[in-house]
Amino acid sequence: MPGRSVTSKVLALLDAFTPSTPELTLSELARRAGVSLPTAHRRAQELVGWGALERAPDGRFHIGLRLWEVASLAPRGLALREAAMPFLEDLYEVTHENVQLAVREGLELVFVERIAGRRAVPVLTRVGGRFALHATGVGLVLLATAPAEVQEEVLAAPLHAYTEKTITDPVRLREVLAGVRKSGHSVSDGQVTLDALSVAAPVRSPEGHVLAAVSLVVRADTAQPAALAPLVKAAARGITRALEPRHP
Amino acid sequence: MPGRSVTSKVLALLDAFTPSTPELTLSELARRAGVSLPTAHRRAQELVGWGALERAPDGRFHIGLRLWEVASLAPRGLALREAAMPFLEDLYEVTHENVQLAVREGLELVFVERIAGRRAVPVLTRVGGRFALHATGVGLVLLATAPAEVQEEVLAAPLHAYTEKTITDPVRLREVLAGVRKSGHSVSDGQVTLDALSVAAPVRSPEGHVLAAVSLVVRADTAQPAALAPLVKAAARGITRALEPRHP
Repeated sequence: MPGRSVTSKVLALLDAFTPSTPELTLSELARRAGVSLPTAHRRAQELVGWGALERAPDGRFHIGLRLWEVASLAPRGLALREAAMPFLEDLYEVTHENVQLAVREGLELVFVERIAGRRAVPVLTRVGGRFALHATGVGLVLLATAPAEVQEEVLAAPLHAYTEKTITDPVRLREVLAGVRKSGHSVSDGQVTLDALSVAAPVRSPEGHVLAAVSLVVRADTAQPAALAPLVKAAARGITRALEPRHP
Repeated sequence: MPGRSVTSKVLALLDAFTPSTPELTLSELARRAGVSLPTAHRRAQELVGWGALERAPDGRFHIGLRLWEVASLAPRGLALREAAMPFLEDLYEVTHENVQLAVREGLELVFVERIAGRRAVPVLTRVGGRFALHATGVGLVLLATAPAEVQEEVLAAPLHAYTEKTITDPVRLREVLAGVRKSGHSVSDGQVTLDALSVAAPVRSPEGHVLAAVSLVVRADTAQPAALAPLVKAAARGITRALEPRHP
């Protein structure tokens, strides 16, 4: 493709890897990155040399540990997760339910951490995976506190109905988001899967911006959202405090 | 630098970020990557455009969430961690001690997961962080099961003494590694910090290769390694089983 920068051509090779296609042959890689086979071969070899890609015995490529190592320095990835982990563990210890931590990336959210209870209600999420903002508890918190232009863009697009309870009416969703801002937490009841209810609260930066959202996901039929909200909010505040610079 | 490939020049910008320098100004980035200021500026902008880097309000660059998202597809990173997490959680639940999961990368190890007990003995590790192979419990397992040429290279180099108990004599270390292979687990007693003891066991691929090591790190003065070994080995076997392809 003419006009594309060299950097973007290199990054296009990484873009070829997705959660549904984490391993690719050389020809799949070339096709997905939009480059010739010899170019894909040369660049892939260079990426293997650095450790951004690794090659399995069957010849297929996958993302390498060296890239994961560098990426672990992302403040919104593992660094946030490290600060949050003790509070997420405490939430898990006292509830044995699913605990999730997510950040907004554009018009979607990315799960940064998940502690799944063995006997807890099944959830659809994967660490590093994406999800829409308008359905989950963490999504509703991240959407309610996003810049106005992000909210407008999400509300203007079709809202996917994961279940019959998912809010797909923009007017109704606007009301729900106002309620989240007022109460300081969200409740998503059967809006992702009918059997799950999540309660989420915002994690703020020392400057007061919303950085992330933390949630508990429990069985919908026995859930007591009013009891869970203070627990989730306290954990979110604990993470916010852990992110503040230490004063000696 | 003439002769360097374009890919390696792009990756040199990512290499500039390290655990001790996770945020860099443009001039720091240019100096560390060995490129001119205008080149660094152009490439950094392209990396920001893709999401591999993000720029803070103060103008400094850090690793971006999009890179972390792609990197989460690394089979030896988050994918291994996802398979291992239920077993690590169980280990934590029954002991409330530090639980660690690590893989070998060259002549060192990288921590892929860590669950830190709030009241457990303090440990030096960080998820995504590196450590030498000859001192920790997980390191001794990964070294004992590494290819012969890796073992020889580690044994030929000076072995850093973290404490007076760290094994720095190659002849003695060879004996310890033989013992690890025989028993199927390692014990590192005060070899990283004097107050900590770790017991580790190997996680194997479905083909039988050692992929990772899992450990419990406890207080050295009250530790009972003989009681911990079966627990750690059972967790390691559970992870091995979770990595096997499901047969319908």
